[in-house]
Amino acid sequence: MSLWEKYSAVRAHSVSICSKLQKEDYVVQPVVDVSPPKWHLGHTTWFFETFILIPHAFAYQPFNAEYNYVFNSYYENIGARVIRTDRGNLSRPTVDDVFQYRAYVDEAMEKFLACEIKADVSELLILGLNHEQQHQELLWYDIKYILGHNPLFPAYGLENVENELTNTADGWIHFKEGVYEVGYQGDQFHFDNELNRHKVYIQNFSLSTRLVSNGEYLEFITDGGYEDFNLWHAEAWDWLKVNSITAPLYWYTIDGEWKRYSLSGMELLNMEAPVSHISYYEAAAFAQWKGMRLPTEFEWEVASSQLKWGKLWEWTESAYLPYPGFSKAAGALGEYNGKFMVNQKVLRGASVATPANHSRNTYRNFFHPNLRWMFSGIRLSK
Amino acid sequence: MSLWEKYSAVRAHSVSICSKLQKEDYVVQPVVDVSPPKWHLGHTTWFFETFILIPHAFAYQPFNAEYNYVFNSYYENIGARVIRTDRGNLSRPTVDDVFQYRAYVDEAMEKFLACEIKADVSELLILGLNHEQQHQELLWYDIKYILGHNPLFPAYGLENVENELTNTADGWIHFKEGVYEVGYQGDQFHFDNELNRHKVYIQNFSLSTRLVSNGEYLEFITDGGYEDFNLWHAEAWDWLKVNSITAPLYWYTIDGEWKRYSLSGMELLNMEAPVSHISYYEAAAFAQWKGMRLPTEFEWEVASSQLKWGKLWEWTESAYLPYPGFSKAAGALGEYNGKFMVNQKVLRGASVATPANHSRNTYRNFFHPNLRWMFSGIRLSK
Amino acid sequence: MSLWEKYSAVRAHSVSICSKLQKEDYVVQPVVDVSPPKWHLGHTTWFFETFILIPHAFAYQPFNAEYNYVFNSYYENIGARVIRTDRGNLSRPTVDDVFQYRAYVDEAMEKFLACEIKADVSELLILGLNHEQQHQELLWYDIKYILGHNPLFPAYGLENVENELTNTADGWIHFKEGVYEVGYQGDQFHFDNELNRHKVYIQNFSLSTRLVSNGEYLEFITDGGYEDFNLWHAEAWDWLKVNSITAPLYWYTIDGEWKRYSLSGMELLNMEAPVSHISYYEAAAFAQWKGMRLPTEFEWEVASSQLKWGKLWEWTESAYLPYPGFSKAAGALGEYNGKFMVNQKVLRGASVATPANHSRNTYRNFFHPNLRWMFSGIRLSK
Amino acid sequence: MSLWEKYSAVRAHSVSICSKLQKEDYVVQPVVDVSPPKWHLGHTTWFFETFILIPHAFAYQPFNAEYNYVFNSYYENIGARVIRTDRGNLSRPTVDDVFQYRAYVDEAMEKFLACEIKADVSELLILGLNHEQQHQELLWYDIKYILGHNPLFPAYGLENVENELTNTADGWIHFKEGVYEVGYQGDQFHFDNELNRHKVYIQNFSLSTRLVSNGEYLEFITDGGYEDFNLWHAEAWDWLKVNSITAPLYWYTIDGEWKRYSLSGMELLNMEAPVSHISYYEAAAFAQWKGMRLPTEFEWEVASSQLKWGKLWEWTESAYLPYPGFSKAAGALGEYNGKFMVNQKVLRGASVATPANHSRNTYRNFFHPNLRWMFSGIRLSK
Repeated sequence: MSLWEKYSAVRAHSVSICSKLQKEDYVVQPVVDVSPPKWHLGHTTWFFETFILIPHAFAYQPFNAEYNYVFNSYYENIGARVIRTDRGNLSRPTVDDVFQYRAYVDEAMEKFLACEIKADVSELLILGLNHEQQHQELLWYDIKYILGHNPLFPAYGLENVENELTNTADGWIHFKEGVYEVGYQGDQFHFDNELNRHKVYIQNFSLSTRLVSNGEYLEFITDGGYEDFNLWHAEAWDWLKVNSITAPLYWYTIDGEWKRYSLSGMELLNMEAPVSHISYYEAAAFAQWKGMRLPTEFEWEVASSQLKWGKLWEWTESAYLPYPGFSKAAGALGEYNGKFMVNQKVLRGASVATPANHSRNTYRNFFHPNLRWMFSGIRLSK
Repeated sequence: MSLWEKYSAVRAHSVSICSKLQKEDYVVQPVVDVSPPKWHLGHTTWFFETFILIPHAFAYQPFNAEYNYVFNSYYENIGARVIRTDRGNLSRPTVDDVFQYRAYVDEAMEKFLACEIKADVSELLILGLNHEQQHQELLWYDIKYILGHNPLFPAYGLENVENELTNTADGWIHFKEGVYEVGYQGDQFHFDNELNRHKVYIQNFSLSTRLVSNGEYLEFITDGGYEDFNLWHAEAWDWLKVNSITAPLYWYTIDGEWKRYSLSGMELLNMEAPVSHISYYEAAAFAQWKGMRLPTEFEWEVASSQLKWGKLWEWTESAYLPYPGFSKAAGALGEYNGKFMVNQKVLRGASVATPANHSRNTYRNFFHPNLRWMFSGIRLSK
Repeated sequence: MSLWEKYSAVRAHSVSICSKLQKEDYVVQPVVDVSPPKWHLGHTTWFFETFILIPHAFAYQPFNAEYNYVFNSYYENIGARVIRTDRGNLSRPTVDDVFQYRAYVDEAMEKFLACEIKADVSELLILGLNHEQQHQELLWYDIKYILGHNPLFPAYGLENVENELTNTADGWIHFKEGVYEVGYQGDQFHFDNELNRHKVYIQNFSLSTRLVSNGEYLEFITDGGYEDFNLWHAEAWDWLKVNSITAPLYWYTIDGEWKRYSLSGMELLNMEAPVSHISYYEAAAFAQWKGMRLPTEFEWEVASSQLKWGKLWEWTESAYLPYPGFSKAAGALGEYNGKFMVNQKVLRGASVATPANHSRNTYRNFFHPNLRWMFSGIRLSK
Repeated sequence: MSLWEKYSAVRAHSVSICSKLQKEDYVVQPVVDVSPPKWHLGHTTWFFETFILIPHAFAYQPFNAEYNYVFNSYYENIGARVIRTDRGNLSRPTVDDVFQYRAYVDEAMEKFLACEIKADVSELLILGLNHEQQHQELLWYDIKYILGHNPLFPAYGLENVENELTNTADGWIHFKEGVYEVGYQGDQFHFDNELNRHKVYIQNFSLSTRLVSNGEYLEFITDGGYEDFNLWHAEAWDWLKVNSITAPLYWYTIDGEWKRYSLSGMELLNMEAPVSHISYYEAAAFAQWKGMRLPTEFEWEVASSQLKWGKLWEWTESAYLPYPGFSKAAGALGEYNGKFMVNQKVLRGASVATPANHSRNTYRNFFHPNLRWMFSGIRLSK
């Protein structure tokens, strides 16, 4: 597969995720963590324009000089930008403008990739594709949030990634204590935060073969889990009180029945399916209630070859920290991972929203412990 | 003109104001005071459906039972509603949905108006038309804010209401002290807040024949008006510091030149045109700097027949308070005016954005003293 | 009475109000509107030092050059100051320091007043004494708030101003419409906001001879007054919801009985006494519920000679606005009144906490409509 | 040393720390993290009353039933409490009341300890003493903050713990990679968060023999450290912008010279002394600027026997997380450590404010990464 083929496959996938959106759906930002879909489509395009075409493509003319201000996300090195909470206040560029921007950049990329390119630029391109794949996953989260927080609860369509949210058989797998190696090894694409590969000492542990189900989680609720402060971290308890949280995101009791909004619309709660859209706070409280705990990211990685994973990102107990010998790249791309290494928790695995070819057992996803609009779930450890 | 003709003329005007919007422009709410244009189009429709068709039209079926939740503005009597800050978070109903809603209600209204209707329903209808005209004026404010706060500063079109923003000749008119009558008199439409007509005693006063111009206001800025706390109310000074305000809304210094965003795009500041988008705080500070003051609403009303007015709403010194004998209507329509009679200032006159047939010399417009996204200006008194 | 005798009488009264405070009570600021008692004692002293001794007393040495920063309240002309919310964060100057400061300034004032002084300085002195009397009233409010919001609800002492909170006999007095004169007339001390005396036209009106009692107000509560949005201004309703307000300040239901904190401690609600610590919002909602209204400040002033007043400040419907011909003094003293003339409501009369010789029927007190820690009450009009 | 002797020594030390406070200093709470000294004195007393005397001492009568509400800190199991931000709003109980409370509880403890007590109660007592020692350290932080944020900058006294803030000689110590054991081992007092002792794998590392000095930190400032976003975590950069932070806490430039507030008053910056009152964010940015990093808590523990430590708590890169096999005690005492194990960073060592007999090389102190009012410093690793 040529670089251009890879590039156009990834680019086409972003568009296909959005294929059932109305124009209005592309624009709104109901909470700060959600970005408007048109922003994702523009921002991923801006990445290629800014880091590849402008510095490396001969005589490239930027599509619109103002777009850097609009589509820069958090790269301080690249200059001023629309503040994050304002992304949903922008009606312009329109959806059509953004699609034209994509077409313009794609055409320039095709021309650019027709010639030989240097190894470092090729690496940048691969990074850009992985970056766009991360936004593809975010697109699913954000589309679900935009529709699922609309009082009309519109379905996105009956064929969607949530249909794959099934679970596996019950059981436990046991692992022996000792020195293990973790971190990325190989010569394929990987993020800087997966390095260095290094030794860790792990105690005896057991991992559940399955994710916690909606039914099990409902027992926790019924047993008063959201009212017993002893189960919660102090910050979790504050969060829960301030936000009046009494169930996972997208759960509703309507006429005495538990329902859940999925991309297919409002449905009866499926007791067998793995519980999803769970914050770390909730995952940890559930584990506490069970008398168990969450795995560390290293336990998970060591066990990964024996697990079925990939329906939901799995919260770990591990904080998102640099590995031994970690160092940031110079310039804007150094802002990719390192500057987020505080106050976040690592999730491992992948989810039904993760694009094909975008998962590894050394992949370190990370979110703040209160967030839950992503496809996250719980695997227990003991 | 039949009721139906009046109705369809007003309804058509709302749509025509929006005719140059992109779909995306209909959706956003950059600040709480601005509502998405599609919300205005839906809300004014909801008014007719809720107060006329549902209670009075035989066998009327609401277009969508959920729309009450979406399009109710502030009528506590009519039930729960989307909180005001969330209006810009709703991608659905789409713009097309809203236009279908309008068509559906208009068709039902046409059928309803084909028969004789009772006097009280006819009054409600006239109220609904005046209500829609108020939203037509808001549409201009909101469209300007949505485009004028976009970093791309798109023009709305070269033909627009701001082209009429011209001024009149300089001079002063003098009035003698004595007892005058103010308030609405007659049998045409008027709001409850214009009653009762009553006597007031007014001291000698003089009113300027013209509105303060951009050029005069620029002198105030150049003279350090925004840095001298002695000119400002205490709350105004806090507002100015917290919001880093140093000029009227839509004014920018770009490359050493004063520019102003209008619906025609970014333009050089026109020194002759009346200064607009001014808060009460700024109007009062300017008057203080001039050694003059703003008129009271009664001075303005008494003088109105000798003034040229209608380019900009004119701030008065008067607080928005009930007239002697004021009483609220029962039920939801009683929420129209009375409940806002605290902490707001009266503006008199009309603006270039005011629809034809929607101005009177007894009309009492009102806003909080810090607001300035409306077409407001300054007339001095002494 | 010599100026020095007047001065020392007023100064002594401030100290006597605080005589039963513990040192700790002098320090705290439980909400922004309350100032620590030691701050009041220091600030009133600073007023004499700053406006009289420093500019006019030969060779006067300020007690401590840093105190201007600590004890300036809101005079922008006099330089930087501790922000208002920080007053309760200052343990130093200590209470003993503040009493030494008072003694130092009093001694300098005694020496200064031993000689002839100019008329304008004498006027400043009288203003300073009236200023200190205003803070004497605030001291009562703030002491009550500090003790009444302590979970131990300590009494301040059985002898206190609240013992005088009795009511008068029921009845109505009627007034004829016509032109009246309002505003201060005479050659005694008065504030700039009481001028100019001017004519107003007033319609027929009636005033209650008594203030609304706790018993009557309890009926309003029992009848669901705090749950019926139709009775409230829109901003009042928001205020009530955000602050979970369901009764006047200092009212509690304990074991099924209504109690009220007074300076004598927690007591059974006295049904005959006038309801106090009422916001304008509550006063207006109560009047609405009664089918009546609050008087305007001019109605009150015209009627004042026929009323018994002085137990509680009485809310009026009038906004705090300048009288015709009002002008601010130059410099810092011009900040005394004029800059507050927006978003506040006028109260008329006086309260049990008002010092002797500090009330007039033209006195215009003013507070924001949501405030209620002062001794405020309700007189109905119709 | 008998239990009573231990008890009375610890109790006396708390009082001696406060010996130079004015009564007013005991009351205030200038920021949420600081508690009023009288609250510390009451809260530590409440701990003994609540967990020892009430459940275990025959016929003990609580000093005041309301004090549980006032002096409970964060024990949800023990009932409602004054919210943390309100501690500085309480003038009562007075300082004298609190000292009487201490005397009353101490007398009851003396009587209680005169008889044989059970092992589990003895353990509780030892926990209570360690708890009070933690508050002794906090008393130093809070006293410094209270005086150091007063605009008069009063000294606390020339003899104080900051005089010991000296540094050691420069150099590096190197450690070999391998499996090490960490965590508490022994039969003395320790906290639950120091268990279980367990094996960890550590890579080769080197630790500086000295703490970073004020002089070195000043170079970082001079080199633009606070202006270069590439050195900071994303959250750190936001924190720095929102709070306008440009230097460590207590640093001021006055007349062109760098000064620092210490408990001895405002002094010229001592370039040799270790930099203190540093947040994790600043420590990490400084290390980044140096091209180095902070140690992990396990590196620190393994190296501890070869380090001189105890002047300042040393930030580590480690997040505060449970050790393998960690479990919380049942009931209120289970709230001691576990519920804080998210979003905090571990500090190791001890500081000049740490009481004698209250440090261990397995001791895990923890704070949020933005806090810096404690005696914290930086040791570099590479």
